[in-house]
Amino acid sequence: MKILVINPNTSSSMTDHLRCELEATKGPLTEITVVNPKDGPPSIESAFDEAQAIPPTLALAEQAERDGYDAVVIACFSDPGLDAAREVLSIPVVGIEESALHVAAMLGHRFTVLTARCERVPAKLEHVRRLGLNSRLASVRPLEMGVLQMDEDPTRAKARILEVGRAAVEEDHAEVLVLGCAGLAGYGRELASTLGVAIVDPTPVALKMAELLVHLNLTHSKRGIYARPIKAVHTMS
Amino acid sequence: MKILVINPNTSSSMTDHLRCELEATKGPLTEITVVNPKDGPPSIESAFDEAQAIPPTLALAEQAERDGYDAVVIACFSDPGLDAAREVLSIPVVGIEESALHVAAMLGHRFTVLTARCERVPAKLEHVRRLGLNSRLASVRPLEMGVLQMDEDPTRAKARILEVGRAAVEEDHAEVLVLGCAGLAGYGRELASTLGVAIVDPTPVALKMAELLVHLNLTHSKRGIYARPIKAVHTMS
Amino acid sequence: MKILVINPNTSSSMTDHLRCELEATKGPLTEITVVNPKDGPPSIESAFDEAQAIPPTLALAEQAERDGYDAVVIACFSDPGLDAAREVLSIPVVGIEESALHVAAMLGHRFTVLTARCERVPAKLEHVRRLGLNSRLASVRPLEMGVLQMDEDPTRAKARILEVGRAAVEEDHAEVLVLGCAGLAGYGRELASTLGVAIVDPTPVALKMAELLVHLNLTHSKRGIYARPIKAVHTMS
Amino acid sequence: MKILVINPNTSSSMTDHLRCELEATKGPLTEITVVNPKDGPPSIESAFDEAQAIPPTLALAEQAERDGYDAVVIACFSDPGLDAAREVLSIPVVGIEESALHVAAMLGHRFTVLTARCERVPAKLEHVRRLGLNSRLASVRPLEMGVLQMDEDPTRAKARILEVGRAAVEEDHAEVLVLGCAGLAGYGRELASTLGVAIVDPTPVALKMAELLVHLNLTHSKRGIYARPIKAVHTMS
Amino acid sequence: MKILVINPNTSSSMTDHLRCELEATKGPLTEITVVNPKDGPPSIESAFDEAQAIPPTLALAEQAERDGYDAVVIACFSDPGLDAAREVLSIPVVGIEESALHVAAMLGHRFTVLTARCERVPAKLEHVRRLGLNSRLASVRPLEMGVLQMDEDPTRAKARILEVGRAAVEEDHAEVLVLGCAGLAGYGRELASTLGVAIVDPTPVALKMAELLVHLNLTHSKRGIYARPIKAVHTMS
Amino acid sequence: MKILVINPNTSSSMTDHLRCELEATKGPLTEITVVNPKDGPPSIESAFDEAQAIPPTLALAEQAERDGYDAVVIACFSDPGLDAAREVLSIPVVGIEESALHVAAMLGHRFTVLTARCERVPAKLEHVRRLGLNSRLASVRPLEMGVLQMDEDPTRAKARILEVGRAAVEEDHAEVLVLGCAGLAGYGRELASTLGVAIVDPTPVALKMAELLVHLNLTHSKRGIYARPIKAVHTMS
Repeated sequence: MKILVINPNTSSSMTDHLRCELEATKGPLTEITVVNPKDGPPSIESAFDEAQAIPPTLALAEQAERDGYDAVVIACFSDPGLDAAREVLSIPVVGIEESALHVAAMLGHRFTVLTARCERVPAKLEHVRRLGLNSRLASVRPLEMGVLQMDEDPTRAKARILEVGRAAVEEDHAEVLVLGCAGLAGYGRELASTLGVAIVDPTPVALKMAELLVHLNLTHSKRGIYARPIKAVHTMS
Repeated sequence: MKILVINPNTSSSMTDHLRCELEATKGPLTEITVVNPKDGPPSIESAFDEAQAIPPTLALAEQAERDGYDAVVIACFSDPGLDAAREVLSIPVVGIEESALHVAAMLGHRFTVLTARCERVPAKLEHVRRLGLNSRLASVRPLEMGVLQMDEDPTRAKARILEVGRAAVEEDHAEVLVLGCAGLAGYGRELASTLGVAIVDPTPVALKMAELLVHLNLTHSKRGIYARPIKAVHTMS
Repeated sequence: MKILVINPNTSSSMTDHLRCELEATKGPLTEITVVNPKDGPPSIESAFDEAQAIPPTLALAEQAERDGYDAVVIACFSDPGLDAAREVLSIPVVGIEESALHVAAMLGHRFTVLTARCERVPAKLEHVRRLGLNSRLASVRPLEMGVLQMDEDPTRAKARILEVGRAAVEEDHAEVLVLGCAGLAGYGRELASTLGVAIVDPTPVALKMAELLVHLNLTHSKRGIYARPIKAVHTMS
Repeated sequence: MKILVINPNTSSSMTDHLRCELEATKGPLTEITVVNPKDGPPSIESAFDEAQAIPPTLALAEQAERDGYDAVVIACFSDPGLDAAREVLSIPVVGIEESALHVAAMLGHRFTVLTARCERVPAKLEHVRRLGLNSRLASVRPLEMGVLQMDEDPTRAKARILEVGRAAVEEDHAEVLVLGCAGLAGYGRELASTLGVAIVDPTPVALKMAELLVHLNLTHSKRGIYARPIKAVHTMS
Repeated sequence: MKILVINPNTSSSMTDHLRCELEATKGPLTEITVVNPKDGPPSIESAFDEAQAIPPTLALAEQAERDGYDAVVIACFSDPGLDAAREVLSIPVVGIEESALHVAAMLGHRFTVLTARCERVPAKLEHVRRLGLNSRLASVRPLEMGVLQMDEDPTRAKARILEVGRAAVEEDHAEVLVLGCAGLAGYGRELASTLGVAIVDPTPVALKMAELLVHLNLTHSKRGIYARPIKAVHTMS
Repeated sequence: MKILVINPNTSSSMTDHLRCELEATKGPLTEITVVNPKDGPPSIESAFDEAQAIPPTLALAEQAERDGYDAVVIACFSDPGLDAAREVLSIPVVGIEESALHVAAMLGHRFTVLTARCERVPAKLEHVRRLGLNSRLASVRPLEMGVLQMDEDPTRAKARILEVGRAAVEEDHAEVLVLGCAGLAGYGRELASTLGVAIVDPTPVALKMAELLVHLNLTHSKRGIYARPIKAVHTMS
């Protein structure tokens, strides 16, 4: 099974970080390729960044299907381009936010999403609501670090996860924590036992979810919201 | 007051159609410019189309603020790029879908959105839910016409509005109809009295909403979801 | 265009205050008349007050249509009699609460309503929910002033808006503030830049919304919830 | 225990009908008085009718507490004046709609409300939602009879309940039917076994609920939404 | 009228406590029997406890109908076995949680449930949501006492109700308090006037609700969710 | 990795059917044991059946953890005992309904659950709502077959899936179908391409989800709703 993992920003160090984590996670028969677009924002921290990152991400996704990949993972915790990619692809496309939140909902009554900066809190609230999982949300809490900082300074990022995660558990009654950024991949590993709650790391979850779907021969429905786009036609030309 | 209206697709005939309608709608002291991007899809009928149309739309919106416009209207009934534009602009940005649905909610108990094709129904349901207006939605019904066809064949489009609108009124108990495509601008004018319900035409509504906001010196909050994006920084570089 | 603005309480000083604010807000071709009923409560601060104020308010609204007005604005932030007025009138009837909350929902992710006293908080929560906008509500916070005090003591009222508004922004993450009382008209003008969020002043918003509807030839649907009441008939008499 | 039952319309024949039904329902130690206001609409079939009926209904309710009654029942299936009456009274005030819908929610998964005319369907939907019971609603279906007709023509009303109720059970999967008008009191008695579902008759339910509350020494909280109204005061006069 | 009240745990001292309270609550013509199963958990403080308590509770309920009882009350504030009992019985089955929450919803805008331990808070949130009453919930707050302790130490339990109830009123704006455990029966009696809000004691409420249903000849619908279970049949055996 | 799959009913033929399907689904390094309790109902088609099946299912689950299993799957599409099992176990416990519905939500806009008999429709609606996924539900449709019949007559079951599934797609706009019974395992395999939508087979999905959780070292949070039950203690004994 061949899976393409797309880091939609242009930070090759984050791509390397993800590759390293995912090589250790993938199943024995899975072959993964982890890439990022050449053009676009170095990190995705706003709707504006997302808008710029989506077209090159979609181009990589379309190429993956032509190249015979079995599934695509979009590895940014706002699932940029997920809907559009599903429209133009027939192989499964897995978003790390969507799959992480659904798994989190199965591990406890309420989960907290740890996001980068406070400005992203409302967008995260919207995403959870869009997925219909808002009844299972305890809170969204900002780590108050930039995305690239998280990738570059694991020590500080882990300290922040511990501090903010503890507040979520104690004040918001979170039973599950979701690491709301691909750049945090692997950082939760030692913290779950300290905090006494489940910690969901979205990129590994998404990779295993892609394997699950491919193994079960499941993909998104091509009827309805993910139908292949109709090419615009002029009737009178 | 200067308002830029952006048709986010590249169909100049639709841009001309909108300009014509809006010149007749604008207030006496309002000056409007109606434009479309040079590059991008000729019509927006999928999430994939939206993804391609958003970057050039944002470029036009950013230029508008630099050029001294007082407000921007995005004239496509899926509000492509609305969130991102609000992040990077301080002047009001009005989406025709958002403003039409809020006005529709004030004119009756439940509204029906008339959309182009049946494949777009789920996306429209999502949009209404995203705005939090789903308790006021009677239904989304497809006209089963392409966006460009609507623009090119007003007679057929009006006949379909009448037919599908009547079904919405009688079967779904819609009290208000929303024309779910900018290309339908002006087509509802003679139909409201025939159908006996209010018909909301999104592009004129959005233009008047932009005038309302400018007149009242109101714009979107720059604190929270529409905060100006922070430039990505590498802490360790 | 002729618009009747009804202050549903009997406080003529508040009526004068509203007239003064609205004369400065109305469009150049709009003619406004601002009135209040002769009988009824001096301010509306309970469901009981509303109940007493509604019949005389409806009488004024019905007379307005007979007198050739183009629209009616009900200028009390609980929209007393709005549904009933729409049943018996064909011209647009605009409630300041309804129109302010819909506009607020377009200016940020979540809004806070500033209301008079803490006893009114639950009623405001109900109103927001009734409009279907509860997913966009940050909080309702009381100013802990009576309605007439607000009208009479602008200095203290503005100080309270600043203080309570700041708490809403910082603690409830409000991105938009709604002045939840007609008596606060004009008081938010200098405060928006201080607080760094949008402030929605309901009465001016409602007047411009009435102009928008009249200009676009839109009114509430007379089919469904606002249908003209059927006169009770005895079948066997 | 003394309970005042107010029929808020001026139809004395409906008052007589209710008195007759309730005398047969009340507990052995309960004394009931069934009255209607002298002024107001002969039936309540619109928000406009409600607005006119509420002030005289409130006057009767206030007098009841002064006269030593233990509870008040408002016997019109839109609970006109319920909130206002609870504000100004300390004894329990029971609405027939509210209590019937809560009891219906305990008797099956989803209930259908049978209302008078189709124009009232949206208002009933709003009421169910206001009570927070919309997840338990199967449908609202009109009997297509006027309120006074129901009272005057029991044979036809029962035939309609049977016909419309059967459609609700078969098409909407209603498990419980609620007779959505005080004028239907007693009409469901023989129909429950025919239809094979529970039928909730709101006025008897409300009377027994009033007895339950008085017996348990329970009344609405006077803190919060039903707080006694503060008299308006001018600070500067 | 004969009503069987089942305490689903095996604590006979709690059964005696309930019998004592309910003898003082029942109507003059009601005959009550209060029992508990011989086998099962001594208190019900988890889903695991509920699972063990349900089969013997159902056996008692089934026997009650065979013995000619008119109604059954399940007296544990998680309504264990309520759905299953309604499936196999035709006489009314009343759950103390369900009936208490519906009554609480009629007495104020929002209620707080006082539960035993903090681990039960999420389950209580789920129950309120399952009943569709979450829009009326202020909070769930733990008393931090075990169920048997509550029964055994009334002084401490009442002190905790006062302390936690006051916090609910002041911090969560609760207008009604619900005693979330059968073992608290009777403990709220003197506290309502101190706290100035309504206090709902679920077991007495449930007994009176059972009387109400029997008196009105109402029972749960046997069509739909409470249909009598079909015996499993093997078609090919 | 060792996984115990519990068929909670006593039908050994269904257990054999599941074992056969799951042996073909499991990963190469997974060892599965598929069992059923000795006592309890032969199929689970009511809340009453669930109540009887849960205690023996819990006993098997507890034994599994003592025996060194890595995860438990409860293979009945109402997830009987799932909450209780998570309370008393530390290894992951996967319910086939919960995991299937979360996966279905990722494959299309709305899913339809195909259930056994029409009496189970309301319970399924409740389950979807309990999971918070009701915004993604198209419908629940009954196959009108008993659970044991489904297991025994694959030909008829597949024909019904095709027929009812097609109605769900065409009339309810379902984009995904969920086979709402463990006894249907494997029956959807050839039907997805015929119907043109994704078909989710819950038992294989749950097995792969259990593998995913074990592989990622994830289990349900032991803090909050799944906390280990506190043994009841008498303070005064």
